[in-house]
Amino acid sequence: MNDAHFLRGERVPMTKEPVRALVLSRLQLHSAETFMDVGAGTGSVSLEAAVTWPGLQVIAIERDAAALALLHTNRSHFGCENVQVIAAQAPVNCDLQVDAIFIGGSGGQLSALLHWSLEHLVPGGRLVMTFILHENLMQALTLLGSLPVCALECVQLQASSMVALGEGHYFKPNNPTFVISCLKEGNHG
Amino acid sequence: MNDAHFLRGERVPMTKEPVRALVLSRLQLHSAETFMDVGAGTGSVSLEAAVTWPGLQVIAIERDAAALALLHTNRSHFGCENVQVIAAQAPVNCDLQVDAIFIGGSGGQLSALLHWSLEHLVPGGRLVMTFILHENLMQALTLLGSLPVCALECVQLQASSMVALGEGHYFKPNNPTFVISCLKEGNHG
Amino acid sequence: MNDAHFLRGERVPMTKEPVRALVLSRLQLHSAETFMDVGAGTGSVSLEAAVTWPGLQVIAIERDAAALALLHTNRSHFGCENVQVIAAQAPVNCDLQVDAIFIGGSGGQLSALLHWSLEHLVPGGRLVMTFILHENLMQALTLLGSLPVCALECVQLQASSMVALGEGHYFKPNNPTFVISCLKEGNHG
Amino acid sequence: MNDAHFLRGERVPMTKEPVRALVLSRLQLHSAETFMDVGAGTGSVSLEAAVTWPGLQVIAIERDAAALALLHTNRSHFGCENVQVIAAQAPVNCDLQVDAIFIGGSGGQLSALLHWSLEHLVPGGRLVMTFILHENLMQALTLLGSLPVCALECVQLQASSMVALGEGHYFKPNNPTFVISCLKEGNHG
Repeated sequence: MNDAHFLRGERVPMTKEPVRALVLSRLQLHSAETFMDVGAGTGSVSLEAAVTWPGLQVIAIERDAAALALLHTNRSHFGCENVQVIAAQAPVNCDLQVDAIFIGGSGGQLSALLHWSLEHLVPGGRLVMTFILHENLMQALTLLGSLPVCALECVQLQASSMVALGEGHYFKPNNPTFVISCLKEGNHG
Repeated sequence: MNDAHFLRGERVPMTKEPVRALVLSRLQLHSAETFMDVGAGTGSVSLEAAVTWPGLQVIAIERDAAALALLHTNRSHFGCENVQVIAAQAPVNCDLQVDAIFIGGSGGQLSALLHWSLEHLVPGGRLVMTFILHENLMQALTLLGSLPVCALECVQLQASSMVALGEGHYFKPNNPTFVISCLKEGNHG
Repeated sequence: MNDAHFLRGERVPMTKEPVRALVLSRLQLHSAETFMDVGAGTGSVSLEAAVTWPGLQVIAIERDAAALALLHTNRSHFGCENVQVIAAQAPVNCDLQVDAIFIGGSGGQLSALLHWSLEHLVPGGRLVMTFILHENLMQALTLLGSLPVCALECVQLQASSMVALGEGHYFKPNNPTFVISCLKEGNHG
Repeated sequence: MNDAHFLRGERVPMTKEPVRALVLSRLQLHSAETFMDVGAGTGSVSLEAAVTWPGLQVIAIERDAAALALLHTNRSHFGCENVQVIAAQAPVNCDLQVDAIFIGGSGGQLSALLHWSLEHLVPGGRLVMTFILHENLMQALTLLGSLPVCALECVQLQASSMVALGEGHYFKPNNPTFVISCLKEGNHG
C-alpha cells in the first residue's frame, strides 16, 4: 500500500512501504487470527494488515497523543473496524494470546518488551521487529540469543526512491533499516 | 512469506521475499479480483498472492518447462485452486481484462509486453515490474514515458541477509533490484 | 582526507570522501604528471590530489563564482601551489595534453565534454566521472560505447555514516553515486 | 589502484578497491612517515600506500604462509623497497612508534590488537579498521568507547560493480563493509 494513503505527522514515525511490506510478509498474517502492533505510530502496519485481511483482529498499542490522533484518523479513513486501539505504553497488563506481534520501536525497554511479547504469543507465533539504531539491533540479537525463539532471521533493507532532480532523476535513499523476525518456540510460556 | 516455503530450481529465477513483498504491496491486490503474473517462474509471486487473498483469481503465464514443473508443484503444495497456469510465452492472445499485472522478467520483448499489458489492464489497473538489468530499467522508464500511465514510481531495493561466517555474522547482499510501479490511465484501451 | 578539512558552500556540490577516495584511486595519479578536474566545485578532488602528490600539476576548471571563491580559499588553506584554477566553463579552448581527467558534473553537455576530454588526454590516459542522476549515467555509458575508450568500469557506491540519534546511532545514507572510469585507447586523436 | 593489479589467492582475503581507497584516505598518509598494516593479507593496502607515497615506510604484518607468499610476490611486482614484511601474528613484541595503523582483520583478539595499536601509535596517530562481521564492528565500537581515542567515525560502504549479464548489465554487490577510523588522543601512551 502506498505511503501516500496514510495521514502522517511531522514527529510521528511511520514504517515506510518497503519495510512495512517485508514486515507484513514475515508476520505471515494469512494464517493468523490476532495480531498486535506494539508502538503503532501512525498505524500504517496495523491498517495495512487490517485492510489486507478483513477477518484479522488487530490490536494497536500506542502511548503518544499525537500518534494516537493520527491512528484514529487513519482508522476512520480506511474504515477498519477490526483494529482496536489501546492507548497505553507497552508492556501493558493484559491476558491476550496472539498469533503475531510487531515491535516498531523499543522506547528504551527492549528487554521487557521481548519478554512480554513472548508471554503473549502463542507457541509458533511470529515476532517481527524493526530497528534503525545499531545499538537496538545488537541488543535485540543478544537478548533473543537467550530467549525461546527459533527461525531467527535478520535483513538489512536499503530502499532508494527515484526522485526528480534538475533535468533528471536520482535515487534518494531511505534510512537503512534492520528487520528481525523469529518464531516463539513451541514449549514456551 | 519465507522464501524457504517455495520449491526452487537451479536455473529458475525467483523473486526474493523483500522484493516480492514490495511488489505485492504495490499491486494493491486487496482491491483486485484478477491478477496476472507474466513470466511467473517458480510462481512465488502468484502463490503468495493466491494464499494471501483466497478470493483473488490469479493467472500465471510461463513458457519454460522447468519453471512450469516447479510452478505446478508449488501450486499443489499450497493447494491454491485460484491459480490458473497458462503454459505460453507472453504476450499471449487472450481477451482477459485484469486489475493488476506483474512482469518479473522481460525476455527481450519489453515494448510488446508493456503495450499488451496496458491492453489487458482495466483503467486504473496496477502494473508492477522488477528489473536487475540496468538496460531493462532504462528501457522501461523510456517506454512508460510515452504510454498512458500515471503514478509512476521506481524504487531500488538492496536487501542483505544476516548469515553466519566464522565466529560471527555478516550481511550477505542480494542483487540490487529495481521495482517500477504505475497505474493505467483511465482513458486507455 | 576528511570532508571537514574543506570549506564548503551551501549550494556548491562537493564530492564526498568515500566517492572522492575511489575517484582518486581510479585516476591512478601516482603515475601522472598532469591532472584536470572539470567542474571542480569546492576543489576537494583537486586539492586532495595536489596534497597527496605534490609533484602533480593540477588544473581545476570551474565556472561558478561561488564555487570559485571556495576553491581559492581552500587552495590557500592547503597551500597548494601546484593547483591552477581556470575560471571558465568546460569545454574550454586549450592545447593541454593531460594524464588524467575527472568530470564531477556534466552541466548538460556531457557529449561535448567527453569528446573534448578524449582530445586532451594522452593515449592510455584515465577518464573518471561521477553521476547522481540516472539519466546522466545512462547517457555516459551510451556515449562511451562508441568512443575510443577501453577498460570501462562502473561502480555504484552507497556510503552511510554512523550518526548519533537519541540514545544510539544509525547509519545515515549519502546519495548513491555512480563512478565510471575508463582509459583512452592508444590510437585516439 | 585497480584490484586487477594485485596477484590474489583463493583463500587470502583482499580489501577491495572502494574500501581500500577510503581506508587510505582516512589514514592520511600524506602526512605520515611510518605506516603499519596489521594482517596485511595480499598486501593490497600496504602496496598501494607504498606506491602512492614512495617516501613512506610501510610495515606489513602477516602470519599466514599463503598470504605471505602473495605479499612477497606483489611487493616484487610493484618493486616497493619501502615495504618491510614481518612474518608474525600481531600483536608482536616491538618498539615501533608509527603514524598510522590499519587493521584489516581481527583474528579473534581485537581487544589485544586495539591496546597494542594505541601503544605503538604516536599521539594524534590514525587508526583505521575494516569489518565485515557485525559482532566485530560492535566489539570494536564498544572497546573504543573506553580507549583514549577521538574523532571516531564509522562508515558502512556498499559498493556494487557493473557486470555483464545476458544482454545487459547489472550491479553485482560486494559485501557491505564497515570502516572505523579514529585518532589516538594526545595524552595516551
